Formats: sequence, structure tokens, C-alpha cells
Amino acid sequence: MERLTLIDPLDMHLHLREGETLKRVLPYTANLFSGAVVMPNLKTPLCTTQEVLSYKKSIEEACPKERFIPFMTLFFHENLTLEELTLAQIEGIRIIKLYPKGSTTGSEAGVAQILTPKTLQILETMQSLGLILSMHGESGGFVLEREFEFLSVYEEIARTFPKLQIIIEHMSDARSLERIERFSNLYGTLTLHHLLYTLDDLLGQALNPHLFCKPVLKLPRDREALQKAALGAHPKISFGSDSAPHPKEAKESAKGAAGIFSAPLLLPLLAELFERHGKLENLQAFVSDNAHRIYGIAPLGKRVTLLQEESLIEEDYSGFIPPEAGKRVRWRVESSC
Amino acid sequence: MERLTLIDPLDMHLHLREGETLKRVLPYTANLFSGAVVMPNLKTPLCTTQEVLSYKKSIEEACPKERFIPFMTLFFHENLTLEELTLAQIEGIRIIKLYPKGSTTGSEAGVAQILTPKTLQILETMQSLGLILSMHGESGGFVLEREFEFLSVYEEIARTFPKLQIIIEHMSDARSLERIERFSNLYGTLTLHHLLYTLDDLLGQALNPHLFCKPVLKLPRDREALQKAALGAHPKISFGSDSAPHPKEAKESAKGAAGIFSAPLLLPLLAELFERHGKLENLQAFVSDNAHRIYGIAPLGKRVTLLQEESLIEEDYSGFIPPEAGKRVRWRVESSC
Repeated sequence: MERLTLIDPLDMHLHLREGETLKRVLPYTANLFSGAVVMPNLKTPLCTTQEVLSYKKSIEEACPKERFIPFMTLFFHENLTLEELTLAQIEGIRIIKLYPKGSTTGSEAGVAQILTPKTLQILETMQSLGLILSMHGESGGFVLEREFEFLSVYEEIARTFPKLQIIIEHMSDARSLERIERFSNLYGTLTLHHLLYTLDDLLGQALNPHLFCKPVLKLPRDREALQKAALGAHPKISFGSDSAPHPKEAKESAKGAAGIFSAPLLLPLLAELFERHGKLENLQAFVSDNAHRIYGIAPLGKRVTLLQEESLIEEDYSGFIPPEAGKRVRWRVESSC
Repeated sequence: MERLTLIDPLDMHLHLREGETLKRVLPYTANLFSGAVVMPNLKTPLCTTQEVLSYKKSIEEACPKERFIPFMTLFFHENLTLEELTLAQIEGIRIIKLYPKGSTTGSEAGVAQILTPKTLQILETMQSLGLILSMHGESGGFVLEREFEFLSVYEEIARTFPKLQIIIEHMSDARSLERIERFSNLYGTLTLHHLLYTLDDLLGQALNPHLFCKPVLKLPRDREALQKAALGAHPKISFGSDSAPHPKEAKESAKGAAGIFSAPLLLPLLAELFERHGKLENLQAFVSDNAHRIYGIAPLGKRVTLLQEESLIEEDYSGFIPPEAGKRVRWRVESSC
């Protein structure tokens, strides 16, 4: 039977939540990945280094850092000071996450106007400290055009701060790929779900709220372009799952929450995708090497071995519904050490 | 206070379901409309005249025909004979509804391949009997292109049977409007929801399963073109709500059912839309005159008066969730006689 060993897989965009949910979902990622970028949009967003460190501690309590490294992020807000950013840097927080206000789950405290003098000052400070800007880039326009409309903001920041490393998170629109080619300091992450699905999967047959996310799934041509970039292990793109657990009743509701819980299935489904396209040899670069290089992460030494053996996707994982529930996947994790 | 009296409003595309649901939803339409085209896609589709007549009886038992005329439809299937179609015609069934197999709720018994010799023979018979072909026109392609891709089928049938009257039901794509201009025997219906909403309303903020329907809501440019046609009371277009009740638990589910329950709000929300665009004077043609002329329906003599007075949209109507639940609408029905 075929085996595939991945060295140090990294998930560069992850939502772990807090409390009971954190304890339930973290093992799925910790089993498969050496580390993950943990997003700061908790119910009360993590706006200070102190809050981030306290959250980090709760993650390490749930899973020892020998097994899993959480790369912590600070919530971007207009009152970030030089002192706060310096403190963050000293404490090893290298990524600052910017949400436009109201763009997705937990973004109510996000930035209403992005290119203001105050914000530009913060970005300049971040550049001088070597911090990384991670952005959920969506405008307030028509849902299918939001990511595209926001590209001009990335462009403006990339041009103004040529030494600031900027990440277009969870790229969903083919036109974002063109943009990262144009600026040497602009990078991207890709999720599993934007590689696998289009609007057809969300609402082509029955409505599937478990495939509802922000940015929303797009068109076949977008998926095709994103797949091409991932399968070719585009050197400026890291894998970031954006796995985002919500209780079943928050998903299957009159106001369905945005977020797909993919954590338990990420490597098996990625292996299946890369194998189907004859590109298994590029998976190591896509889920690990690129991120190590782009974010400057030292080797962590985990080896995850996948076995090509069909297994059943469960109906739920600790109460959270995955995509493809009840279907089969051609790979499973054999060992992780 | 401003009043608007509509004479003989007609809903040319309606789902009443059966049993208890029929009894609960019918009054909403019977209060506002002189009559409605009642769709045949029940749990067991109405494939014979006998079945349609039995269903008609249950509708008349739920609401006397003096108050409300159900225009009955027969489910198009490949075993429709000359005898069956003749019998339908004699019994006053003038509309045959064709669903591509699997295209929407209750279409499992629909037609898998549309332009076959068998089907063309049925269409020829329908043409000779003066029956009307009503179609849910969607291909099996990508969800946003399904209506457009199906237009070639309408075109082929319209060209082959120039005396057959053909209805593009619930037009959702701007490109369908161009098509009805090209063929004198091609007509359309428009729903309220495709006039009011786009994908933004369905999934731009939280996911709203109560705005999930087939064909799915489209882009702003589609809504704009459809609005223009409706507000101008385009002479080849009738109003047809496609109001389609589903239990709350079937909508707010992992496999959300397609269909929007708009029946109680149709005239108030239409009046609000037409008023907002300064086109109230065209509402009579859009919700009545056009259908009378296109389908050859004699005057029925109902007068429905709307009063410009703000009212609250209820959270549910007999257990079915409407669009805009809990919001306000500027018009309400004052009297219907």
C-alpha cells in the first residue's frame, strides 16, 4: 500500500476558539500538524500581547508545546502602539491579523476604514519591527466581488511598505493570484475548501450550511486557478485551512454562521486531491516547505505518515460537522511523531 | 393615506402542497389573488388528469372557487398520450409543467432528456391542442449558469413549435429577458424574490436558508434587468410568485430545501417596490392584465385594496418563515372582495 510521509506540516490559518471548544478541536490539528497560525478573533478579540499570551497558555495547557507549536497572532486595531507592537515582537508574536469590520465571524471590532493616517502609522511600525500583516481582505460590496474589490488595498499597502510582509488570507478569487505575482512582499494562503468546492457544492443541490464560509466559495474558474497554484506548490503560497468550528445549531439556523470545520480531514483530503492530479510530490512544499521559508520557521521535526487506505469520514467530530460527512476518503493518517 | 386598488391580481406560479399544508397556506393567496397557477410537483407528481382533478377538489374544499380560482397544471412526463392531453384540455387543464429531472423540489420524476422524439411528439400534440408549456428551465451545469445554459432548449422548442405557447418560469438571469424578445411564442414569469434579492441577501452576511430557492438568486445586474422588466410591466411577462412552503426544520437543516414562502407578503412588497421606483401605475399590468392577456383568462371580478400604512412582517405565517421576517413593509392589504 502506498505511503506518504510529510515532514513538519503547517496550517498557517486556524481558528481554535476557546474553552471547551478549544479542547475539543485542538487535538485534530495537533495530530496532523507541527504547528499552526492561531487566529485572534475570539469572542473578545485578542488586542493586547497580554491577552495573546494568556490564550497561548490555554492552548499549551490543552496540548503540550512539544507536540504542537501555536504561532500566535494579535488582533489589528487602531489603538495599537509602538510599545504594544514591540512587546508583541519580544514575546514572539510575529503576525498581526487585520479584519475589515463586519467581514466575518468575530470581526465586529475590526477596522472600519483601512487606509487612514492612524492605520498607516501602525503599518509603518510593523514594517520597521519586521512583523507580518495578515488580512481578511473583503470589501463591503457584492459578495462575489468582495475579495477582488479589496485587492487595491493590498496593492496600496504593498507599494507603500515594500518591506512589510503581507498575506492575502484564504484566497478564493482567481484574480488574487495575479496580484501576488506583482508585488514581492505580497503572499497568500489557500484553504482546502476553496480548492475543493464552488458555489455548486454550497447551493447547487440542497443548501449545505456546513460549506458556508467567508470569503464564500466562488466559481469553477476560480477553483481551477487556485488548484493549479496549489498543485504546483506556488512558492508564495502557504496552506492555511481556515478551519473554523461552529456548533451544529449555529450552522443549521436562520442566520447560519460562516466557517467550515475541516481540521480532522485536511491531510487526507489534500493527499486525495494532489494524488488525483498526479502531484503528490508537491504536497510537502504546499503544506510545509513554503510556509517554513515564507514565515521563516525553523524545522520542528514532526513526521506525519499517510496511508493510501480508504476510510469513512465521520458524521461529526466531537460534535462539529465536517465537509463530506459520511463520504469516503482515499487516505488516512497512519502515524504522527 | 394613499390607497391602491388592484383588479383581479393573479399569481401565475404557486406551490400549495397538499393536506394540512395546503389548508394552512392557501388562505394567504386566496385573500390576495383572484386565482393562481397551481404547480403539480406534489410528493407524488400529478401525472394524470384524474389526479389533477382530485387535487383541484381538495383545493376547492379548502377555499370555495367563488373566492379563488386554481388554474391547474399537469406534470409533464414521457408517457403523456394524446388521449391524456385531450382529456386534460376538456377538463380545463391548460398548462403542462415540465421539470428537468432533479432540478428542484419534487422534480425526481421529471424529464431526464428533453429533446427526444418522444418528448417532441408530446410537444407537437400540445401545440395542436392549444396547451401551454410551462418549464423550469435549468441545465445540470454550474449553478449560476444553469438558466442561461437551458435557454437553447427553450429556443429549440419555440422554433420547432411556433404556435406552442411556452413560459420561462421564474426568470432569474438577465439573459432570459433577451430570449423572450426573440420568439413571439416565448413568455416569462417573474417572482417577487428574484426582483428583491441577490446572492448577497442569501449569503452576504449570515447564511439565510429562508432565501434559498431554485433557480438561485443571482447577481445585482440580473436583479436590475428583472426589475426594469417588471417595473415597466413588460407585456410578455406575468407575475408568478413561486411561493413554496417548507417546514422550518427542512429549511434550517444540513440539506436545506429550496423554496421561499412569500405568499402572505406578495402584494405589499410588490407595492413597496413599485412605489419606490415611482411605478405604482404599472403594478396592475404586472400582477394582472398581462396574465389575463397572455393566458386568455376572463375577468374574475375581485378587487384588492392596499393601504399605504406600515405594518410588521410576522416571524412566521402558520409556521412557515417568510422573507423579511420581523421587518416592516410600507403597505398592507385593507380589503379584498
